[in-house]
Amino acid sequence: MTTVTLEDIRAAADRIKGSATVTPLLPATQISGGPALYLKAENLQQTGSFKIRGALNAAARLSAQARDRGLITYSSGNHGQALASTARQHRVPCVIVMPDSARKVKIEGARALGAEVVLVPPAQRKQVAEELATSRDMTLIPPYDHPDVIAGQGTVGLEILEQIPQVEVVLVPVGGGALASGVATAIKAVAPGVSVVGVEPELAADAAAGLRAGRLAQWPPDRLNRTVADGLRTNLSDLTFTHLQQFLDGIITVDDERILQAVDLLIGRSHLVVEPSGAATVAAYLAHQEQFAGKTTVAILSGGNLDRAMLGQIFSQ
Amino acid sequence: MTTVTLEDIRAAADRIKGSATVTPLLPATQISGGPALYLKAENLQQTGSFKIRGALNAAARLSAQARDRGLITYSSGNHGQALASTARQHRVPCVIVMPDSARKVKIEGARALGAEVVLVPPAQRKQVAEELATSRDMTLIPPYDHPDVIAGQGTVGLEILEQIPQVEVVLVPVGGGALASGVATAIKAVAPGVSVVGVEPELAADAAAGLRAGRLAQWPPDRLNRTVADGLRTNLSDLTFTHLQQFLDGIITVDDERILQAVDLLIGRSHLVVEPSGAATVAAYLAHQEQFAGKTTVAILSGGNLDRAMLGQIFSQ
Repeated sequence: MTTVTLEDIRAAADRIKGSATVTPLLPATQISGGPALYLKAENLQQTGSFKIRGALNAAARLSAQARDRGLITYSSGNHGQALASTARQHRVPCVIVMPDSARKVKIEGARALGAEVVLVPPAQRKQVAEELATSRDMTLIPPYDHPDVIAGQGTVGLEILEQIPQVEVVLVPVGGGALASGVATAIKAVAPGVSVVGVEPELAADAAAGLRAGRLAQWPPDRLNRTVADGLRTNLSDLTFTHLQQFLDGIITVDDERILQAVDLLIGRSHLVVEPSGAATVAAYLAHQEQFAGKTTVAILSGGNLDRAMLGQIFSQ
Repeated sequence: MTTVTLEDIRAAADRIKGSATVTPLLPATQISGGPALYLKAENLQQTGSFKIRGALNAAARLSAQARDRGLITYSSGNHGQALASTARQHRVPCVIVMPDSARKVKIEGARALGAEVVLVPPAQRKQVAEELATSRDMTLIPPYDHPDVIAGQGTVGLEILEQIPQVEVVLVPVGGGALASGVATAIKAVAPGVSVVGVEPELAADAAAGLRAGRLAQWPPDRLNRTVADGLRTNLSDLTFTHLQQFLDGIITVDDERILQAVDLLIGRSHLVVEPSGAATVAAYLAHQEQFAGKTTVAILSGGNLDRAMLGQIFSQ
């Protein structure tokens, strides 16, 4: 297995420069009550999440011929949007395989970005995408299990180090693990003294369990799907597990109630719309303040694609 | 009458450096459908609005002795919060005179920032604040009718020019007029070719009426209070009218329905929580797209202090 290096991540940063936004790092005194917490606002990224970084990098790494034949994936969430937007930038075809249970707004969102949507039973998504990639001769870009995707997501780590060189702790959400893998690889290579701590929902703590046991844990979808943080309902892959085992300083789990409180706080006090998966890091900070006291800490807000129904639920209270 | 100069605004920028946030300028392709619109996100400013700039500058201009005796104002909104936060940074007393009809959350917000709240009938706010300033020997810092406040707000204009030197149009909301006065003064002095266009709610279009007539218009509170954009329910003063008459290239009015649509779009597509007064510029952009077509345009999002009841209303639909 070839792991991603700092050089890969630096090359990715060059490739996506100008296409992805250098998202702001914002002081969060209104949340922390002190000067030590900063928010890396990937919810303000193009397509509303960090996923565009990996998609852009993976697409840029293809030959022009391969890219022109088209891109395909099986995520109905942020990676799907990111890939559709990437394909549109390159003016190449894009297919998103979605579960037939996907909400209409997600299907319409992908179509609005010019992608073709193929609906299949949930359990067949990956397999159908692989078959279509072969039959249509398109390139499959998976949501996290790919070195070019990991390298792209790692550019978040390089930006943090540039924006706040005195950083001491970085909190990063862990779903499939590409963001955490890339960020930890970048930061540990440049500034080994900085702690990189993963954050997972208690209800989808497969990475915490796997890292504790020293081998990849596979939780069934039913178990992962219990958490409100829909972007984190994913197991690691061998590739991301290997990166996290090598570079992560620890992993914190948080309950869903605290995650939703963090969503609410971010809207009310920081004026940022952040989805539960993105707010998990702030929830972890607030639940373990003593651990971070006096340390310059960055919480990565991974995305902002919160659906209207959830906003309604939060604010009708 | 002494008007504010570019030198005053540059001096203000030096004074507030490190205390106010240099807010991000964000591309808004998800709103404009093209690359030409940018958002100056003062909703992400300390205390949730640009008002901290003027309050910090006015406080810094006082002698240490005067500042130590304390600061007072009569705004229950963003300026009140900004002044309370400024006083806290200097560890000096602060009094906010509020109407006895003020919502509990505003009163508690000011108290949480360490301010003393004095409740009076709405019509007596300004008078009581002036009397208290005299009897307690504190300095009254008004919300907009003051050169140091205008100079502080003008620093938004300097930041825009630094962040996007190729800017062609700046849209700025007009309430009491200090933000528009400061921004127009700064931009016209540095880059006279840039258009600075004011934006007002149709229901509180006193500035548009006054500028058209060539003299200050005074609308009664009942008339101004019809708009949902509570930060813009204010007449200009002689001082701000003079700046706007000299430097503003025009003024656009927008209806409340479009303002609320812009609030909704900013939350859903840009993941930014912006109050109606701050979203008015985006509403104006969308209502007059042909006017701005192909021009690099910045919409100033003046603040993000949207109350929960309004969020509930928007997202329960």
